[in-house]
Amino acid sequence: MELFPPYTPPDFTRSPLADAPQAQTAPAPADGVLPERFHATSNLPEYLHLGDGRWLLAREGRMDGVYLLRGDELRVVEPRAVRRGDPVVLARTGRGEEGVYVHADGFAVPAGAPADEFAFRTRNSRETPYSRSYDLLYDLLRHDRQQGHIVWVLGPAVAFDRDSRDAMAALVEAGYCHALLAGNALATHDLEAALFRTGLGQDIYTRELRPGGHCNHLDTINRVRRCGSLAVAIRELGISDGIMAACERQQVPWVLAGSIRDDGPLPGVIADACAAQDAMRVHARRATTVVALATQLHSIAFGNMLPGYQVDAAGTVRPVFFYVVDMSEFSVDKLANRGSLQAAPILTNVQDFVVNLRHNLC
Amino acid sequence: MELFPPYTPPDFTRSPLADAPQAQTAPAPADGVLPERFHATSNLPEYLHLGDGRWLLAREGRMDGVYLLRGDELRVVEPRAVRRGDPVVLARTGRGEEGVYVHADGFAVPAGAPADEFAFRTRNSRETPYSRSYDLLYDLLRHDRQQGHIVWVLGPAVAFDRDSRDAMAALVEAGYCHALLAGNALATHDLEAALFRTGLGQDIYTRELRPGGHCNHLDTINRVRRCGSLAVAIRELGISDGIMAACERQQVPWVLAGSIRDDGPLPGVIADACAAQDAMRVHARRATTVVALATQLHSIAFGNMLPGYQVDAAGTVRPVFFYVVDMSEFSVDKLANRGSLQAAPILTNVQDFVVNLRHNLC
Amino acid sequence: MELFPPYTPPDFTRSPLADAPQAQTAPAPADGVLPERFHATSNLPEYLHLGDGRWLLAREGRMDGVYLLRGDELRVVEPRAVRRGDPVVLARTGRGEEGVYVHADGFAVPAGAPADEFAFRTRNSRETPYSRSYDLLYDLLRHDRQQGHIVWVLGPAVAFDRDSRDAMAALVEAGYCHALLAGNALATHDLEAALFRTGLGQDIYTRELRPGGHCNHLDTINRVRRCGSLAVAIRELGISDGIMAACERQQVPWVLAGSIRDDGPLPGVIADACAAQDAMRVHARRATTVVALATQLHSIAFGNMLPGYQVDAAGTVRPVFFYVVDMSEFSVDKLANRGSLQAAPILTNVQDFVVNLRHNLC
Amino acid sequence: MELFPPYTPPDFTRSPLADAPQAQTAPAPADGVLPERFHATSNLPEYLHLGDGRWLLAREGRMDGVYLLRGDELRVVEPRAVRRGDPVVLARTGRGEEGVYVHADGFAVPAGAPADEFAFRTRNSRETPYSRSYDLLYDLLRHDRQQGHIVWVLGPAVAFDRDSRDAMAALVEAGYCHALLAGNALATHDLEAALFRTGLGQDIYTRELRPGGHCNHLDTINRVRRCGSLAVAIRELGISDGIMAACERQQVPWVLAGSIRDDGPLPGVIADACAAQDAMRVHARRATTVVALATQLHSIAFGNMLPGYQVDAAGTVRPVFFYVVDMSEFSVDKLANRGSLQAAPILTNVQDFVVNLRHNLC
Repeated sequence: MELFPPYTPPDFTRSPLADAPQAQTAPAPADGVLPERFHATSNLPEYLHLGDGRWLLAREGRMDGVYLLRGDELRVVEPRAVRRGDPVVLARTGRGEEGVYVHADGFAVPAGAPADEFAFRTRNSRETPYSRSYDLLYDLLRHDRQQGHIVWVLGPAVAFDRDSRDAMAALVEAGYCHALLAGNALATHDLEAALFRTGLGQDIYTRELRPGGHCNHLDTINRVRRCGSLAVAIRELGISDGIMAACERQQVPWVLAGSIRDDGPLPGVIADACAAQDAMRVHARRATTVVALATQLHSIAFGNMLPGYQVDAAGTVRPVFFYVVDMSEFSVDKLANRGSLQAAPILTNVQDFVVNLRHNLC
Repeated sequence: MELFPPYTPPDFTRSPLADAPQAQTAPAPADGVLPERFHATSNLPEYLHLGDGRWLLAREGRMDGVYLLRGDELRVVEPRAVRRGDPVVLARTGRGEEGVYVHADGFAVPAGAPADEFAFRTRNSRETPYSRSYDLLYDLLRHDRQQGHIVWVLGPAVAFDRDSRDAMAALVEAGYCHALLAGNALATHDLEAALFRTGLGQDIYTRELRPGGHCNHLDTINRVRRCGSLAVAIRELGISDGIMAACERQQVPWVLAGSIRDDGPLPGVIADACAAQDAMRVHARRATTVVALATQLHSIAFGNMLPGYQVDAAGTVRPVFFYVVDMSEFSVDKLANRGSLQAAPILTNVQDFVVNLRHNLC
Repeated sequence: MELFPPYTPPDFTRSPLADAPQAQTAPAPADGVLPERFHATSNLPEYLHLGDGRWLLAREGRMDGVYLLRGDELRVVEPRAVRRGDPVVLARTGRGEEGVYVHADGFAVPAGAPADEFAFRTRNSRETPYSRSYDLLYDLLRHDRQQGHIVWVLGPAVAFDRDSRDAMAALVEAGYCHALLAGNALATHDLEAALFRTGLGQDIYTRELRPGGHCNHLDTINRVRRCGSLAVAIRELGISDGIMAACERQQVPWVLAGSIRDDGPLPGVIADACAAQDAMRVHARRATTVVALATQLHSIAFGNMLPGYQVDAAGTVRPVFFYVVDMSEFSVDKLANRGSLQAAPILTNVQDFVVNLRHNLC
Repeated sequence: MELFPPYTPPDFTRSPLADAPQAQTAPAPADGVLPERFHATSNLPEYLHLGDGRWLLAREGRMDGVYLLRGDELRVVEPRAVRRGDPVVLARTGRGEEGVYVHADGFAVPAGAPADEFAFRTRNSRETPYSRSYDLLYDLLRHDRQQGHIVWVLGPAVAFDRDSRDAMAALVEAGYCHALLAGNALATHDLEAALFRTGLGQDIYTRELRPGGHCNHLDTINRVRRCGSLAVAIRELGISDGIMAACERQQVPWVLAGSIRDDGPLPGVIADACAAQDAMRVHARRATTVVALATQLHSIAFGNMLPGYQVDAAGTVRPVFFYVVDMSEFSVDKLANRGSLQAAPILTNVQDFVVNLRHNLC
């Protein structure tokens, strides 16, 4: 099996693309305000006609961004990052009529559903077989550990269980994580587990609710705040196990995005949503495989900014893989309804998922 | 708005249908055993070529049945009902190549999703707007009360809540139910509510767990068994409210299909699954609108035997509407994965659903 | 860790038990009809006062049964199995007042939640840590493989995926299954996988929907029906892999309970719900550990008839363990709401669950 | 029925409270850092012993806050709001041993579950009867419209459906909302519906995906950003229907808390999580009834800062009611697992819920 499906670029020599006009721009009327009829980008490969049959494949594309085009130089930015006067690409169609082509079927897909008039099993659900999803993911992670950029997006549940927390840390140690994105809760629970063996006061193995344990997470936050940073806390508090300690040892960058649900927050958490998005997007731009575990908020947020493809130095186009692991069909459907149609779901408990990965990869 | 989308039959005068061979049969080798290459029916309109360009639209079609064709007479039966020697139609394709045509697109559908390369909201979920589903259902029920056959398929939860139980009974009283399909539990809970105001010992309004209440359902079953039938029990025990009493007053036929989960069972419950299927299929054959509430088992079972269309005396073809009301995307996906692709989901609590219907229809 | 918590019988020498009256009976008024004020049994250890301070621990107890007491001989039967004149024990209380004592706290439990006024994590959910549940289950299965009776209750999903189907078969081969309870669908999907590598037409590894694949399950059923029995079919059709073939090789008894959802059914499926319950209860009487996967219907049905404890030849009382593996909190809550309070949930996809078990046990 | 259960304060004249020491404080060692053994507050009524038998009932209590005690003056603040030197109350127990008493059972509760050894229906689920929850809520909202502070916490789904959006707006118009808390998405979808009749490009009634509709939400955001504020946009863009317009007309304050999932954001959205928490807590302090719809993030966030009780000018203590409406048991369990044990769940689709409220209240 080829790991990556081959990519076939559009044929720009044939009508209607051969006759397409040049892409147009208009200046932004104000900071963070777009001109009428701006083109909203997708996460699919998109090409802009620069004139004379020269088409430019956008890099670092993302959903709901806009193009700034200066000469042959193209940037994809968030609408809020547009400055007054920036040349914003205009288009409301994606088949070349306005110089923009959205290439929906560039990657060869395995032969799909047969054209039977009637079939069972047309929808993905918890009953869909996932053996091959796992096998493919193992191959991807082995490949991208050396030749890609693997990003993990973690909900807090991973840190509530002893074995899954250990497994996640082992995957980090083994080099399968190039960036970790999460919220204040994941880091807090992980550090609480290191200091108290509990998550929100519950033993992460025996499930016992410890007397007075509801203070453990505030105690954890307080001790780390006193230290001033996670790095100092890990060293001074003698934290040697868990996910954040593994990231620290392996120098894996992390982004902890704040939310209104946070206690504390821990030092290093980015409370401003726009600043947190910017920090996350640094990794979205480079990501080749993303694994998102049990978090709607962070999965949708990162899905919003994630390209569907990457272009390497040689110009080869490969897909970005986006695995979403969750317990409910709704979470996965919701992600698709927000545009992350490329997300490959695995419906299961993330505890089992990471234990599986450790067992097969470490 | 037209209540029913118009139906367009296939054009049999055009190739390849014009050149299709006649449908073939082979004798069943034994009772309940089919010949090789039997045709498995779908719930879509299907046509058989009788020769000389005469095509016969199957009536009372269903998923996973087989055709017995004797001359021009066609019957759709379950495989287990086939007797040795019966002439079973053979086909493994549905585009006329073997004399069978499965007509997947007979009903005009409203203009579907646009051909945009990129779109949000492509999947149905709890976030899908249901206002119009309700409005359409109200119209359907008003129409079919007089001119159709409305079948309700009820899970037990409807009887656990005072207002939803009252609402369901009111819908029966108002003529919106021509047949009621359920299991032992629905009837037991409904009668327990009549006798004790509880469902499995819990007050159906205050939610109080009554002392000793866990005996209430066995007491209910025991009293009814002593009476010998539901009809006698309703009279002799003075049961005047609830769903089963409403059916009794309105002479609405019911089928209570047994399952391994049953206590009792109540007299009248059909413990044999095949016999229960036969009793249910009497109503499937006639159904024009089906409303299934909070039961995977009965919804899938009835969906399996439900035609996707009905043909009236004048030969007009109309769709059969199949509303499925449940709390989880999985239940609805599962139904689709078992072939009931026509099922229209409303994702909500059935308590609210029936209260809504009562409010708008009674 | 002790595998079984020690059991402490009630102290019958102390008031009020020391003063309890003898248990009373009344004759059943008709076949399948109980006298007023019959005692409905629970799945907890229950004792009957036979007089003179002699208390009898009921064996093979179950929820919603009744006691027939003849002299010192006690039987637990389903209400429908009562014959006219049978001496049915009467009681509406369980603290000895009527000679019946329900012993709710016989098994020592680990120190529970602390008496904190305020605590987090008081409810079980997908975020509960399951590492220890797995470890305990591994120990239980190793123990009960030799010294117990392990019963598996399988929903159909286990057979839809290659790795989980293989894992389940391996567990059977390794002796971890003394009885298998399921429905027509599990066996059909498993045999379809053996014959076609599909489940309802979908490849169990690649997920491809095979052309014409929607006939595969009917073809499977038809071939087996032609053979006359599963045993013959496995031999004659050359079926060597999968769950049912493993049961056949290992001579593991199975009960396939029919339901209204069934196609076919396969030969050997018990279509009558009462007869199926009787066949299942043979295994409930002996079960020491039960593992139920992704089936509400069969889990609740088996939970209804399952004792909470077993008494060995030496009179030692041990708990019966009932693991329920499902994706939704609702399924587990529903089981508890039907009385199976002892059920230990693991919230995950059964695919991962059985793969985990194979990895750790085989 | 009394709307509010009576409140019984602790009896401080009896041991051990009569002998309790005075509450102690220690100075905060740094800004946003707490002294060792700080007391973490709960949402229950809590009393501090000021000495000489004088106990002070904390006002505006909340989960995971701390007490600053200066003489007899007590403030509940978030740990991050503590400044160096602030006198933080110390305690790790809540039964008076350290001068702090957590009063867990001040409100009379209806007689609970019976002490039966065995019972069904012990857990809340979608099958729990909700008729009385609705009736109680209707009474509460009628009362608190005049004599309370009703806070709504809205997930985006309310705005996706025509009828539920209209119903929510009608409830605002009718005075049943004193503050609205939501995120960028709710307001964006609501305004998109006003401008385009769509939500993320899908018609909010017909469900049609409009051609090019995936741009509608960005167009909406862009137009509002150009206007500079929601108030100006509502006026200048002629927005007359929907939730935000109703708030504007009724001068209902709103807080739109930003998140990393946001496009835009709209002007007025508070991107900083800490600042958003502060704005939300203004309403938490005063809230008497809270209704949270289909949002885990905002429900948990607001639950974290919500008192379990309010004290009026006359010193009367009443409970704060916190209704949480969602589709899954998990969402409700999760809220409880984060400490909001007082949350009363209604498991249903919020579309039906708000339509029900409008029908019964407007």
